[in-house]
This record gives sequence, C-alpha cells and structure tokens, in this order.
Amino acid sequence: MQHTVGSPRRSEGDPDTPRDLQGFADAGLRPAAPGATPDAAPASIDGRLLRYLLQSLGDPPVRVSLWNGETLAPGSGESIALVRIANRASLLKLLADPEFQFGECFCDGSVEVEGDLVRLLEILIRALSDTASSAPTPRRVIERFRRRRANTPTVSRGNIRHHYDLGNEFYKLWLDRQLSYTCAYFPAPDFTLEQAQIAKMDHVCRKLRLRPEETVVEAGCGWGALALHMATRFGVRVKAFNISREQIAYATERARALGVGERVEFIEDDYRNIRGRFDTFVSVGMLEHVGHENYHELGSLIDRVLERDGRGLIHSIGHLRPDRLNAWIEKRIFPGAYPPSLREMLEVLEPCSFSVLDVENLRLHYALTLEHWLRRFDDARERVKEMYDERFVRAWRLYLCGAQAAFRAGEMQLFQVLFARGRSNQVPWTRAHLYDRQAERGNGGGNL
Amino acid sequence: MQHTVGSPRRSEGDPDTPRDLQGFADAGLRPAAPGATPDAAPASIDGRLLRYLLQSLGDPPVRVSLWNGETLAPGSGESIALVRIANRASLLKLLADPEFQFGECFCDGSVEVEGDLVRLLEILIRALSDTASSAPTPRRVIERFRRRRANTPTVSRGNIRHHYDLGNEFYKLWLDRQLSYTCAYFPAPDFTLEQAQIAKMDHVCRKLRLRPEETVVEAGCGWGALALHMATRFGVRVKAFNISREQIAYATERARALGVGERVEFIEDDYRNIRGRFDTFVSVGMLEHVGHENYHELGSLIDRVLERDGRGLIHSIGHLRPDRLNAWIEKRIFPGAYPPSLREMLEVLEPCSFSVLDVENLRLHYALTLEHWLRRFDDARERVKEMYDERFVRAWRLYLCGAQAAFRAGEMQLFQVLFARGRSNQVPWTRAHLYDRQAERGNGGGNL
Repeated sequence: MQHTVGSPRRSEGDPDTPRDLQGFADAGLRPAAPGATPDAAPASIDGRLLRYLLQSLGDPPVRVSLWNGETLAPGSGESIALVRIANRASLLKLLADPEFQFGECFCDGSVEVEGDLVRLLEILIRALSDTASSAPTPRRVIERFRRRRANTPTVSRGNIRHHYDLGNEFYKLWLDRQLSYTCAYFPAPDFTLEQAQIAKMDHVCRKLRLRPEETVVEAGCGWGALALHMATRFGVRVKAFNISREQIAYATERARALGVGERVEFIEDDYRNIRGRFDTFVSVGMLEHVGHENYHELGSLIDRVLERDGRGLIHSIGHLRPDRLNAWIEKRIFPGAYPPSLREMLEVLEPCSFSVLDVENLRLHYALTLEHWLRRFDDARERVKEMYDERFVRAWRLYLCGAQAAFRAGEMQLFQVLFARGRSNQVPWTRAHLYDRQAERGNGGGNL
Repeated sequence: MQHTVGSPRRSEGDPDTPRDLQGFADAGLRPAAPGATPDAAPASIDGRLLRYLLQSLGDPPVRVSLWNGETLAPGSGESIALVRIANRASLLKLLADPEFQFGECFCDGSVEVEGDLVRLLEILIRALSDTASSAPTPRRVIERFRRRRANTPTVSRGNIRHHYDLGNEFYKLWLDRQLSYTCAYFPAPDFTLEQAQIAKMDHVCRKLRLRPEETVVEAGCGWGALALHMATRFGVRVKAFNISREQIAYATERARALGVGERVEFIEDDYRNIRGRFDTFVSVGMLEHVGHENYHELGSLIDRVLERDGRGLIHSIGHLRPDRLNAWIEKRIFPGAYPPSLREMLEVLEPCSFSVLDVENLRLHYALTLEHWLRRFDDARERVKEMYDERFVRAWRLYLCGAQAAFRAGEMQLFQVLFARGRSNQVPWTRAHLYDRQAERGNGGGNL
C-alpha cells in the first residue's frame, strides 16, 4: 500500500501499526487534514513516526522516502540528501536507537542515502550531541547498558586483530604508500596525502627533537612508517611495539628492505611489556585502544622506561568531554576503543609529574585525511567488494564518512601532547623550530 | 659558648638542649669521636639538629654557621652559599616547618644567605618536593591544617589589594615600562625585558587571531598593558576588568594619554560581573587568583559571554600536579592564590565543551622574566627600603628569587591555553602564523 504526504489516512486500528505504538500515535501526533500541503503533518502512522524521528534529530535538511512511497521533505531550504527507509522494522529501530541502528540499517541496505553522506552525518552528529541529555528514554536506557569490556592484554589482542588484521592488501588500496593509518598533518590544505603523512612524521620528530643515535620506544607502531622515518631520516634507534601480527610482519620486511633492520626492531607484543630505558617515548594512535582504566598504568610505564631527560609524545583521537565512542563504530569498527578528553589524557601524565610542554589540536587535519582516504576507498570500491562483500563496503564507507563528519562537527578532536620529565630543563626554548622548513613538501626534516 | 665541627661534646644533660629533644639527640645521632674530620658528625645538640635538618633537605651544597660559631660544610663538592642561623629558635622553627619558616626567618634577618640564593632555593625546592610524602610529622601536620579561604568577591578584593595595591611607584621601579606583571615571552633569550613583554602580548594576540573592530573582554587586566596593546596594535575594542583600584586608575589614565579611551574601557569590578557578548575572552595571570572552587563558574561565564565563533586564551601559572602554593608565598605574598595543574585548568573549559586548540608551557620564560625583575629590583633596593623597610625588601627579594627557582626547578609551570567553541571550525589551520615575524624585536605584530 502506497501513501504520499497529503493523502492522509486514519491511524486508529491501522493493521500495519504495532499495537504498542497505537497509543503513541493517538496521543502525540494528530493526523493531517485532507488536502494538506507537503509540509504538513504526514498521514500514516509510519509517516508520523518518521516525522517524530526527524524532529528528535533536529529536522535535518533531507528528504526521506518510506517503503510505502510516502515522502517527507525538509520544512524549509534545500535538501542535501535523499534517505530511503526500506521497511517498518528499520524505521522502528531508528526510533529506538538512531546512533547505533543507522549504521546497522545502512550496512544491510535497509537505509540508503543518495547525496552528501558526510554532510548528513555531520548534521546528525551535531543533533544527537545537542539532544543527548533530553534523548527519548529508549536511547538513554540503551546508552546506559552499553557494555564496556576492560582492555586486558587478551581482549586488546582480539580488538586490535578485529580491525588491523583485515589484511594489508585491503589497507594498501586506500592509505598512503607507507600505510600511515593516523591523522596526517597538512602544512597547507593542498598538500597531497603522501606529503601530509611525511609532514606529520616530521612534525612529530621535530617536536621530540630527535638526535642521531638516541633511542626511541614506540607503543603501537602500525605498519611501521613512523619508526622507519625516525630511523632513516633522524638516525635514531627504535624499538616499536604492536600486537597486530600482520602489521609487524609487514614492518619488519620493510625495515629489511630499507637496510635499517639493525636500527629498528619491530616487536609483536603488548605495550605493557615494554622494558628498558629510552630517550624518547612516542605513541601515535594507540591511546584510543588503551582504555581509560589503564591510563595510570601507562603513565607508570612511561615513567619507568624514560631516561632522566627523556621526553615523549602521545597522539590520540579525543573528545571535548568524557564520552563514549559512537555505539556503532565501537561495536562494528573499533571494539574496545575509547577516545579520551584532553583532561583524561592528562591522567596518564600527571600522576608521574610529567610536564606538558605543548598540546596541538589537529582535528580539521583528520577530517581532511579522511576525505583523502574516502576518495581512494571509493575508487577501490569494486576491488574491496571482490575481497569482502557489499556489506563490508557499506560499513567501511559509513565509518570513513562518519569519522570525517565527527571531526568536522567537533565531536572528535585530535590531540598531540608533548611532554618531558617535570624537572628536566632540556626543553625547547620556543616552538619556532617546528616551522622553519614546513613549507617543504615531502622532503623530510631529518637532521642527519 | 662556641663550638666548631670536630670539637665534640656530649649531649646528655646539655643545659642548652630543650628537654623534649634529649631523646631525639640520644637516639638518632651519635656524637662524633674526638678528633673527627670536619665532615664527621657535629658535636653539639644544635649542630646535630642542623645536620638532621640538612639531611632532611637532601644535604644541599651549603655551608651553615650557627649563632655559636659552629659551622657545617657540605659533605662533598663546592658550597654555593653560606647560610647564617642567628639563634636556636630559628633553627627549631626551620626543623618544624622549613617550607614556611625559611621565609619568616629570612625576612626577620635571623637567617641570612651569602651567595647564590636562587640556586640554593632551587635545590631546596627540589628537595622539599622529593621528600613531601616522607616528610617528618610536624611538616605533614602543618600542611594539613593550612587554612584555605574560599575566594568570594570580598575575600578576592582583599587578597588582590594586599599585593597589587602596594603602589604603582613601587612596581615602576622594577617592571618594564608598561608594567606587565606576568611571564614575558623571549623569542630569543637575549631579548630585553621590554622587547619580551611586547613579544608576549603579540604572541597572545596572534594566538587569538584578533581582527580590527572585534570585541575583547579581558579578565584581570593588571595595569592595562595587554588591553592597550590589543587596541593600539590590533584595532580591537576591549573591556578590561580588574579589582585593583590602583591598577585601574593607572590604566584608565594611560588609555586617555594614548587616545584610545573610546576603544578600551577599564572597569573596576570582579570578573564575575562581566556582562555582554564578545568575540574573544582573554585572561593573563588571573586564574591563579580565582581559586579552584570557582573554575566551573568561570567556565560558565566564558560560555555566556563568548560569541558563537568566539575563542579565548587563559595564561596562568600552574603546577605539575594538584598542589598548594608554597606556604610562605601564599601567606605573605599572594594570599588566596592557587596555581592549578593543567588538568585542573581544563575543568574550566571541559564542562562547557570548549575545544582546546593549543597549550604552550613557558616556564623557563618565566624564570628569565624573574631574573630581569630581580636585577632591576636589586638596583632599586635602596629606594624600596626608603619606601617601605628592610623587612619588606628581604621579603620581596626572597619572593623574586624563590619564584625564579621554582620555575627553574619545574615546581611551577606557565601554561597558555588557547580554546574555541567545540563546534566552531573558525580555527587556525596550523600555528605557523605565530612564527612568521617572531625575530622582530618590539615592533609589534599588529595587522592594522
């Protein structure tokens, strides 16, 4: 049965309306009068539920069409996308828990979006954040019962393999040549992704003021790009830890190929097992996986392994204030992940009296990084589908779009925190040295 | 009666030893054998108490002479200063509460220091911080009962007048020409104080990306240097708040003399009474006086007065971790002051979802600023003594030396925290613009 806005029907006794929603339909929303304009209240109970959903999401500027042909247009202004909802079950899921179910329905194809998905997600993210405290009860209850598993070494290993051991071939399709899977740094927005990832590594190395023959320990090294950059461009010796088997195998092979197998040791092990003493501690994109409950232990570890005048840098996705990761991303993409607020990040450093020298927020750089990744991912879409399936493609597209939207919306932050021992006066006098040669594109900033 | 190290005498029944210290003397420290070297245990109970005091302070490299002629030399290495203790009462006070009593005894002349006072204080600060948790009981008890008065508007007014209303003539003797009484910024260490204070104001203005005709509210404006700099060099309109009457009168007069009375309004009022809406919030050197209990309220105020794309900067002395100010400084120099840890500073910003864009730690710049102030203060010493008295000169000298030592020792930090509304994308792309013209000396960085 097809309904369009403006062809009202009474909801009472509607055989398609689940019994427990009848009261809601009767009480909350009156059916529109016959002959109402397209902007008026929709006719069917489904249309009215949809209108309620859109209202609770701040009336995003989208057209939404239902399985029955009914369509809602935005009250005013342009529509940035057309959203198709394929069945009533999906509509009800969205009503109950939009944060999680949008992803689920998008992946199984029961919700489709034509148009600017990033912009739509940015608007939805802002709306969900605005209404978090006044959210309908089901959302609050669901939020309350979201399970948090502690990141023990075993759980961590499972979580990390879930994401990072998908296969190097997959990541090669859309990351830069060196497989840097963290926020790039664009000295100017027109840097290429390759240039910006090199600029990021240089930026980190300059912040740390690496000197030849110094020792560095890296916690969470991905495919090894930063460790190799440090060794080849700055002449340091690196021990790099990671619990993703695929990444460690790849990084070790690259070190051998680059002839720095002696200078860079890649170790397949948990950061908690780091031993020894180092001039520098660096961790780019691992803190998100550490779990808030382990921050104190991480701080003690850094304290234990750093030399007297040691310094360190932690680069991590963050939140404006303590908050869980989006429920769908946490379940489907990054199990166990928790991006901390900056204040929470400092819980790593404060108990051991580390002195924070410099914090930089690069969230718009992460949005731009994700824009590059998405473009490459879309170009490789058919290949990804062959390797996995359509559902996988949809999930990863949604994740890349959603993350870009979250950084643009200010929902997510990217903090680089530089620190030193509280009593060490071996700290840079100003930060001017970071910007001396920054206009250079991809030449590296090595001081060898 | 005179004793020197190496001329031991038995402590039992020593008529000079207070009865309740006999047990301590008997149990803890054995008298040295006759003919012992100068490094051996001292003879008298006074000498042994002194030795105990020095041990509890990590054996600083100083010679100490007592009223009775007895002298202790450092166990090894050079001595950086000679400390004279004039009577037993002072020695006992130092034993009971060195953190507070060193200042008291220094001011009344019963403890004198010949030599490098800054270096000595740096060593003592490091030692006191090292032994804080294992401090003798009296120190811990005293620390526990240190009174904290809430910074209500009335209390704040009294606290601020105690320090800042000492008289503009006094501050003119040793601050820079514009009377900036906060950490300067030295793009290179050989900048003069005048140049470095201008560079600091430019640095702050550039971080805030001030544009002509924008509106700025300043909380705690001192003698108005920054407000006037912003108006004359960056063309903005400023409302500047301060509860020090002398400072406001001076600043208002300067605005008139500079012909910017229309653009800069100095208001003698508590920051809590700021009303209106502004593009920028700035506060340099006020947070230390706000009190931790008022951070949430300060954050709400900033949220209330900032425009949608507003941004702000808070510049404050800080600690590595939550800690009280040195007891003597808090009582005699800065009543009610509390330098927060960076994590505590973020309690101002996080509840209202401000996004921290940039944190810079300038503690060594504050040490250098204080070095300049001390040199000028010492040059003006006779004049200060005429205006006040010898005790005042001693107190202020100790404060300027102690603060310099605290920044060098890492006991104190200086944080500049730049922030914007969490959802505003009107944020600088990188920080390179801060360093474009930084080698310029005192030309100002105005963009008019």
